[in-house]
Amino acid sequence: MKALAKMKPAPGLELIETDIPQPGPNDLLVKVQAAAICGTDAHIYAWDAWSQSRIKPPLIVGHELGGEVVAVGKMVGGFKKGDFISAESHIPCGYCYQCRNDQQHICGNLKILGVDTPGCFAEYAVIPVVCAWKNDKSMSPEIAAVQEPLGNAVYTTLCEDVSGLNVVVFGCGPAGLFATGVANAAGAGQIIHVVKHEFRSAISKKMGSTKLIKYDDPKLVDKIKEATNGVGADVILEMTGNPGAINQGIEVLRKGGRFTAFGLTADTEIKINLNALVFKGCRIICINGRQMFRTWYQMAGLLNSGRLNPAPVITHKFKLEEFQKAFETMKAKDRKSAKILLIP
Amino acid sequence: MKALAKMKPAPGLELIETDIPQPGPNDLLVKVQAAAICGTDAHIYAWDAWSQSRIKPPLIVGHELGGEVVAVGKMVGGFKKGDFISAESHIPCGYCYQCRNDQQHICGNLKILGVDTPGCFAEYAVIPVVCAWKNDKSMSPEIAAVQEPLGNAVYTTLCEDVSGLNVVVFGCGPAGLFATGVANAAGAGQIIHVVKHEFRSAISKKMGSTKLIKYDDPKLVDKIKEATNGVGADVILEMTGNPGAINQGIEVLRKGGRFTAFGLTADTEIKINLNALVFKGCRIICINGRQMFRTWYQMAGLLNSGRLNPAPVITHKFKLEEFQKAFETMKAKDRKSAKILLIP
Amino acid sequence: MKALAKMKPAPGLELIETDIPQPGPNDLLVKVQAAAICGTDAHIYAWDAWSQSRIKPPLIVGHELGGEVVAVGKMVGGFKKGDFISAESHIPCGYCYQCRNDQQHICGNLKILGVDTPGCFAEYAVIPVVCAWKNDKSMSPEIAAVQEPLGNAVYTTLCEDVSGLNVVVFGCGPAGLFATGVANAAGAGQIIHVVKHEFRSAISKKMGSTKLIKYDDPKLVDKIKEATNGVGADVILEMTGNPGAINQGIEVLRKGGRFTAFGLTADTEIKINLNALVFKGCRIICINGRQMFRTWYQMAGLLNSGRLNPAPVITHKFKLEEFQKAFETMKAKDRKSAKILLIP
Amino acid sequence: MKALAKMKPAPGLELIETDIPQPGPNDLLVKVQAAAICGTDAHIYAWDAWSQSRIKPPLIVGHELGGEVVAVGKMVGGFKKGDFISAESHIPCGYCYQCRNDQQHICGNLKILGVDTPGCFAEYAVIPVVCAWKNDKSMSPEIAAVQEPLGNAVYTTLCEDVSGLNVVVFGCGPAGLFATGVANAAGAGQIIHVVKHEFRSAISKKMGSTKLIKYDDPKLVDKIKEATNGVGADVILEMTGNPGAINQGIEVLRKGGRFTAFGLTADTEIKINLNALVFKGCRIICINGRQMFRTWYQMAGLLNSGRLNPAPVITHKFKLEEFQKAFETMKAKDRKSAKILLIP
Repeated sequence: MKALAKMKPAPGLELIETDIPQPGPNDLLVKVQAAAICGTDAHIYAWDAWSQSRIKPPLIVGHELGGEVVAVGKMVGGFKKGDFISAESHIPCGYCYQCRNDQQHICGNLKILGVDTPGCFAEYAVIPVVCAWKNDKSMSPEIAAVQEPLGNAVYTTLCEDVSGLNVVVFGCGPAGLFATGVANAAGAGQIIHVVKHEFRSAISKKMGSTKLIKYDDPKLVDKIKEATNGVGADVILEMTGNPGAINQGIEVLRKGGRFTAFGLTADTEIKINLNALVFKGCRIICINGRQMFRTWYQMAGLLNSGRLNPAPVITHKFKLEEFQKAFETMKAKDRKSAKILLIP
Repeated sequence: MKALAKMKPAPGLELIETDIPQPGPNDLLVKVQAAAICGTDAHIYAWDAWSQSRIKPPLIVGHELGGEVVAVGKMVGGFKKGDFISAESHIPCGYCYQCRNDQQHICGNLKILGVDTPGCFAEYAVIPVVCAWKNDKSMSPEIAAVQEPLGNAVYTTLCEDVSGLNVVVFGCGPAGLFATGVANAAGAGQIIHVVKHEFRSAISKKMGSTKLIKYDDPKLVDKIKEATNGVGADVILEMTGNPGAINQGIEVLRKGGRFTAFGLTADTEIKINLNALVFKGCRIICINGRQMFRTWYQMAGLLNSGRLNPAPVITHKFKLEEFQKAFETMKAKDRKSAKILLIP
Repeated sequence: MKALAKMKPAPGLELIETDIPQPGPNDLLVKVQAAAICGTDAHIYAWDAWSQSRIKPPLIVGHELGGEVVAVGKMVGGFKKGDFISAESHIPCGYCYQCRNDQQHICGNLKILGVDTPGCFAEYAVIPVVCAWKNDKSMSPEIAAVQEPLGNAVYTTLCEDVSGLNVVVFGCGPAGLFATGVANAAGAGQIIHVVKHEFRSAISKKMGSTKLIKYDDPKLVDKIKEATNGVGADVILEMTGNPGAINQGIEVLRKGGRFTAFGLTADTEIKINLNALVFKGCRIICINGRQMFRTWYQMAGLLNSGRLNPAPVITHKFKLEEFQKAFETMKAKDRKSAKILLIP
Repeated sequence: MKALAKMKPAPGLELIETDIPQPGPNDLLVKVQAAAICGTDAHIYAWDAWSQSRIKPPLIVGHELGGEVVAVGKMVGGFKKGDFISAESHIPCGYCYQCRNDQQHICGNLKILGVDTPGCFAEYAVIPVVCAWKNDKSMSPEIAAVQEPLGNAVYTTLCEDVSGLNVVVFGCGPAGLFATGVANAAGAGQIIHVVKHEFRSAISKKMGSTKLIKYDDPKLVDKIKEATNGVGADVILEMTGNPGAINQGIEVLRKGGRFTAFGLTADTEIKINLNALVFKGCRIICINGRQMFRTWYQMAGLLNSGRLNPAPVITHKFKLEEFQKAFETMKAKDRKSAKILLIP
């Protein structure tokens, strides 16, 4: 089969021919119909410091997919050949403290598909059954493939109630755009989106934002305060990891509000005004991954009802062979893309 | 001023002329622009057993209103002449256990506007400032008047999250229709509405229900199980108080789901299958009133965003003088009405 | 090995000799060091209507145990030979809606150890690894064996916070006595225990109850109201399933309080005053089993800290061969027993 | 009457003679029986940057008290002459977004007793009835006086459940010592206390800590990891505001755990490893004040049950006239004190 792999400890990826993998007793073998590129894949492609410390070549990468089950391991329950699935990328061990406390998604021995185990930028992929999610067959492979990152946005947005509340989303990458759509589907009051790139601002409107503010608008704080009658936002969804955005989020959050931290910062330590959060009596909810599978059930409900449509965020589709063009499109300075798919 | 009052302990109400009331130091005087009739008012009109034990004539009735503040008591903060307000009908004492535990709406010494104190079916009404809610001036008096019962539906529906979850609403009176609209605005997955009257079924569709089932359909339970892949509903919103509906709700609720009890039963004691709920490990959330004012803020967010539109539920509008026609319309057997307004 | 089994569809149990069972790939084989008798076992012994419909002889019964792992299946992770374990009796399927929503304990395809699969009243028992719980080796087999029912009490009591709150426990069987101990360990304010049997009242005091009231005291309601300054109890723990107790619990619960339903009623349907709960704006939390394994972790913390000591509730210890004496002691009218152990 | 006041914008306080204040219509006049010194008072005494920007002399300071009501304003409900009270120091406006969302303690127009209004280091003090809390008459004035800071610890510790969970408390000032006592009363599993001063370590043991670690122990992180089987702590209670402690707390917190931020940092911005919290999927709960009055009810329950005894934290008692000695004792380098009282 064809696959996209990191073959040696250096920038880039290679298109290889390799054997179709065999599923273990608790695994599914999946024919990949669509895969999507994550920021993590771009880090691996660029071979940055994090990738160098974590990735052990040779490794097939990729962890966002939709596909059909073509074989099942002999101890598998709940899934069968012909099922149309997506995959949770967080592979839990099943017996640590977190796995036994309803927190499998942050397992103490967590492995990530396409990072610690062979991934899905390939014609076939092995998916542990504990990570498999059965889709409605009416769903397109493209939507199926973006459910993993969409799930991040669902969990970030809905970890507490947003219905009727004023939400500010920081960041217009796929995570921010998806979060805007989820807040819209869940009946948020105002959805103020702090954005950077014009191309993505147009997508934001389609996803349901009610007000756009440029990230470098010197009146950003004033505008949010004014839009909320001086109270500040009930909910911040921080999808950038940018220290400036984080501290703006802290500033515009209302007393007693919820700050939701999803974006990872480039530096290990950043300066924040923790006192402001303490004085305000706020909660900071930090999000890694998605709840297994509460988030997926909520997401299915939102998608099936038609209230959440992630399609506008999918801007490009390339064949697996065109992967270089895909990664170049992704990192282009003007960011005239959002979610990019690879079709094996 | 004109007012509608229970003047003697007997069925019916009378249109009277009386003095405009004076606000106390913590009160607002409000010119009533629109009022709405509640089931409670119909009970008082009919002079049933409950009314006979609770109501002390003479009493101006009515507790759902929108109007303009025309005078404020001298210790009032936060409100001023000219404000456009609605009123929370639950009048809390301010110093009991519940009032000091974020549960003012179920105050240990609770009084109800238009039941224990003079109400709003009149040209002017006195509203304790602790019960006043400032509306956006763009709101119509009609919508303002129905916020109290709409708030019941908001609290019933959103006491826990519904986004992406499958909801079954029992009851097609105003409470059930409003709940359907709230579930829709908050991004519920399926919204299955168990209805009785054809006229109201049409309104239900406008409010966002995704499936209608007649209350006496012998396949009701099967249909709900089938629609939920055999799992059952995540959330039941029981708005009827009918023992049959309550036990159907218990039956179609999924293991680990939420049963929300809003409807009051005609008899003090009813037979229920509590074991089924225990085996299923469910939660029953009982709703009386609305949270003060968390529910009102959520409702404002849902209304302002345009996601929740209660207008289809308002079917009739009468002048205060036409009150008899209004009450007759309300109790007509064919139920070709939902929420009915009285305009002073 | 010796085992206690229901060999035919009739009252009683038989002591049999049978082969030591073989663990499957995901199982542990455990040498049982102590087992405890549950009310469920008494139902099976008596061969009541429920047992007749559920139990398929021949079946080794019993589901509360402490013991040592003597062999592990080949796919087992997290456990090894020599581990000292207890067992969760709820066997989840792993792939249903509940299992994938942090509710394994109320799995949609739930099986119960010793009810649907061979149990632990035997020298050896097979335990699915998903149900195994590793104990500290300093724990006695006796305490290990009662953790399953103690866990019911931990979940019932701590499904919401009790620290500093006034709690009323209905029922002085093992479940009620354990719940009293948990409320005490978790820092409840008053712990009012509604009791029936004198022998168990003495145990209740050791477990930490602050006030005892006889179940048939005509002033029961008044006494609880008085003890709570007329407010009523914050939390009811209903461990009896007796309709009288359930309605007394509803009556003494404060507005806005928590009613926790653990006891199963003898009849399928019972009469309750649901209106009272709705007027009061209460929550009813229905408990089946224990959270897997959040409850077990909390229980371990409470036991290890020394704040919770279940020992006073263990009143009798019999050899497996003396099982008839054990069941007779359990059902004696004067209830001069609480938790009874069988030692293989 | 005698009172302790900041009379001019300079370090120190003065003992003055002044008129007994008059209560307004919604106020109580209280004869102060005991008052306690807070860190805030020490800041005002020292006349640091914060005090210079916030305090407007002349001002009677102090906000922690127990005393007897000697007069009530004419609109007061729920309190009467002779009541023995303590006071919530956060004075809410009653009509802002937070006040109407169950968050009075972080009112949008918050005033603090003894900071923004005349305080309680005096023979008499005026207390707004909305801030008054009635004590059981069996309570000593000394315990009554420390309930305000004890309430901080109750809210910090019990904002989420701790029963059976492993808790690490950072800081051995009164806040940390009180938190240790609350965690103990609420049945925490292990209570690991990170301490600095020997004198206070002895108090910590009396309050219920199960393990003490010196704040500068180079093995601090290892020791906590080891004590928790490598998992890390379920709950961090950060009572210092020290950036080093904050980051140690982040490091020893388990994946999915709760970090509770109470301590204020000296600098507005501090460096923290937010990524670690995001990777771990943690919650940070920021605490300012106490819930009005949920926290006070819980505290009353814990105190009345005898499970929480704050007495060991009260180390010194001075007459109001000896205030200089009191403040010197408080700031002595060896910290041979904890909570210090002033008796008018």
